[in-house]
Amino acid sequence: MTSTTDPALRSFVPVAPDSDFPIQNLPYGVFETSGPTAAPGETPDARVGVAIGDHVLDLTALEAHGAIGTGGRRWFGEGSLNAFLSAGRSVWSEIRSQTSTLLREDTATLRDDSTLRAQVLRPLNAVRMTLPVRIGGYTDFYSSREHATNVGTMFRGAENALMPNWLHLPVAYHGRASSIVVSGTPVRRPRGQTKADEAPAPSFGPTRLLDFELETGFFVGPGSALGEPIPIERAEEHIFGMVLVNDWSARDIQKWEYQPLGPFLAKNFATSISPWVVPLEALEPFRCPGPVQEPEPLEYLRSTRPQSYDIRLEVLLKTKTMSTPHRITLSNFKHLYWTMAQQLAHHTITGCNMHPGDLLASGTISGPTKESRGSMLELTWRGTEPISLPGGEERKFLLDGDELLMRGYAQGDGYRVGFGEVSGVILPS
Amino acid sequence: MTSTTDPALRSFVPVAPDSDFPIQNLPYGVFETSGPTAAPGETPDARVGVAIGDHVLDLTALEAHGAIGTGGRRWFGEGSLNAFLSAGRSVWSEIRSQTSTLLREDTATLRDDSTLRAQVLRPLNAVRMTLPVRIGGYTDFYSSREHATNVGTMFRGAENALMPNWLHLPVAYHGRASSIVVSGTPVRRPRGQTKADEAPAPSFGPTRLLDFELETGFFVGPGSALGEPIPIERAEEHIFGMVLVNDWSARDIQKWEYQPLGPFLAKNFATSISPWVVPLEALEPFRCPGPVQEPEPLEYLRSTRPQSYDIRLEVLLKTKTMSTPHRITLSNFKHLYWTMAQQLAHHTITGCNMHPGDLLASGTISGPTKESRGSMLELTWRGTEPISLPGGEERKFLLDGDELLMRGYAQGDGYRVGFGEVSGVILPS
Repeated sequence: MTSTTDPALRSFVPVAPDSDFPIQNLPYGVFETSGPTAAPGETPDARVGVAIGDHVLDLTALEAHGAIGTGGRRWFGEGSLNAFLSAGRSVWSEIRSQTSTLLREDTATLRDDSTLRAQVLRPLNAVRMTLPVRIGGYTDFYSSREHATNVGTMFRGAENALMPNWLHLPVAYHGRASSIVVSGTPVRRPRGQTKADEAPAPSFGPTRLLDFELETGFFVGPGSALGEPIPIERAEEHIFGMVLVNDWSARDIQKWEYQPLGPFLAKNFATSISPWVVPLEALEPFRCPGPVQEPEPLEYLRSTRPQSYDIRLEVLLKTKTMSTPHRITLSNFKHLYWTMAQQLAHHTITGCNMHPGDLLASGTISGPTKESRGSMLELTWRGTEPISLPGGEERKFLLDGDELLMRGYAQGDGYRVGFGEVSGVILPS
Repeated sequence: MTSTTDPALRSFVPVAPDSDFPIQNLPYGVFETSGPTAAPGETPDARVGVAIGDHVLDLTALEAHGAIGTGGRRWFGEGSLNAFLSAGRSVWSEIRSQTSTLLREDTATLRDDSTLRAQVLRPLNAVRMTLPVRIGGYTDFYSSREHATNVGTMFRGAENALMPNWLHLPVAYHGRASSIVVSGTPVRRPRGQTKADEAPAPSFGPTRLLDFELETGFFVGPGSALGEPIPIERAEEHIFGMVLVNDWSARDIQKWEYQPLGPFLAKNFATSISPWVVPLEALEPFRCPGPVQEPEPLEYLRSTRPQSYDIRLEVLLKTKTMSTPHRITLSNFKHLYWTMAQQLAHHTITGCNMHPGDLLASGTISGPTKESRGSMLELTWRGTEPISLPGGEERKFLLDGDELLMRGYAQGDGYRVGFGEVSGVILPS
């Protein structure tokens, strides 16, 4: 039997060598073919699919036809991934295996049935992607040592850059789930309260320091009960897959509001995610150690196996005058200090319960070099070192009309396991 | 026509003079008559009701019978208040008026129909209350000036007690919705990471500084779209009603984790709410001005009408050795500096969207006197001034077996509009 992570696996669906979506990936998303945009689960024609090359395979239709399935239960009937997320690893693996088999070049079922193929295989450019998951809880971590050090250095000086707790636990805060939007959703420049250092009182107006944050996030699969922590050795059983996350931030609003309870309005006006959820199983060939953790964390955060992944991450900017996006950041998921398993074990250690579809994001993933910084705040060092763009423009922070894109992929031998992209254009206030 | 806030209104259902639930109140809740506890909306026999004296009136049954209703739409069929919350003020008023009429002593429909009455009027002690709402987003404010001053004084000294932003905006943070539980749910003492000032490294174990926070919260009715702030003049149209909230807190975990992004695990192990949602309409006779706001807030936070309420709030403690609870705090909602309307206007000013069923809590409501402090942290001034209890026990923070109760009511002339209570027993770690 050929494993779904077999690097030599090929599909009868054409897949370009630099495609994010070869048969080794098979990320899950929710798409619509017509009708107005709506929340996941509320649209009758929202369907679950997997991406393959430039196409999407309609799992909702295949399941209804009986071509895929486990035990008679419908996983893909509700226009979101939540039911499937709740099913757990054995169902995930079984469905992935069935889907992979259907798409293989040596499987005739779809390949030789043009009628069925026309029903269940649609060009990506003919569908509209929606939020893949009804997101219950959203938590944002702060797990990049380089990011925390950069920000800490700017605000507290190099000697006090990292807070005393930072190397002992994955710092995090609760985010706002209602304002999570899918890639492509424009983001209106928020207005709010800010105060210049020299001003006697705060004032109200559009943020002047609009920023992005390069992050990834993972969706919780099976949940956990209140009062029952998820042990780190079992954390990966609760992690379904990953998306790209842009944690839009208004730095001037953040600076004025965040003491003492953390960021609030500076973050909750919008958070964008990529539409395709890459299953952890597809990333298995790219598993690698993360940074050495010294001091050794407390026992509930200790794991014996490598739990990071080698995923190249990039940020691109396209201003109104530019014809193609220009890369401004090249980072990697493997720079992240705290792993997803550690984040989940920590989040539940006091007994906080998890639900299928909860989203836990990484925090800004900056790397060790200047080019790998994951936010404008860091790239321009609070605006003191503007970025130069092709065509002569400069940027300290994002301006109206700017489009910000994030992409990511793990590079295999002759194929990529990619995330597609998460993009957003800034609309004027 | 008699208004539902008529102080002289009487019901045919017996109501004691000190009952929280006279006909002037009619708070909404969700109850079960049998079967295991489950999340709202997931239990076939979960029903919406209003409390009257020592009984609950089954609105789900009355609606199914056609005895109440508006325009043919079912508001009470799903075992939670969410559909009703989304309906808005005109439907709320109409249903409240219909319910009030049915319960009046001069209305025969129920009074004289013992069969129907037996079907729809049940003793409170024969039902089990569940969470009344499927809570999407949960936000906790920090709106008591006395609380912020007390905490700030303890941690930063009297001269720096209030942060510079505090008098200009209602500080808040996002909380965790998944761990909100209904009154009566036991709370297990959480274990987590703490660090003593003199210790070289953090350690792991049960919290030693388990605390409560006396709060109220309000449920959002109709939501708002992303990017569209709710103006303060329209904020009350989006506020359905209020509950009591106990924001359980682990102070030692909080102290170690909260810099720089705010409280996380120290709060998200459990938050308890009272089962009855008191509609804002029932509180109208108790509307009053809040504290004078000086400096005057920015325009988006200014309102011309009084938007506070005179609601007496108390906290009681009952240890394992005590036979009756002992009051340790007597406070009042009217002490709160920032109003609910200001909280909602602020929450949405950068464009954050609201959904029906979102919960916004007040933050600890401390008053100006020592007896009105709303947490053990403040009552015992970080444990330096233990509370003495009848029978000779002392408390610095909560111990295993302690039961903590909160109650609240607005006192009318001869009647009370009350909240019932929110209680919880501490289980050992």
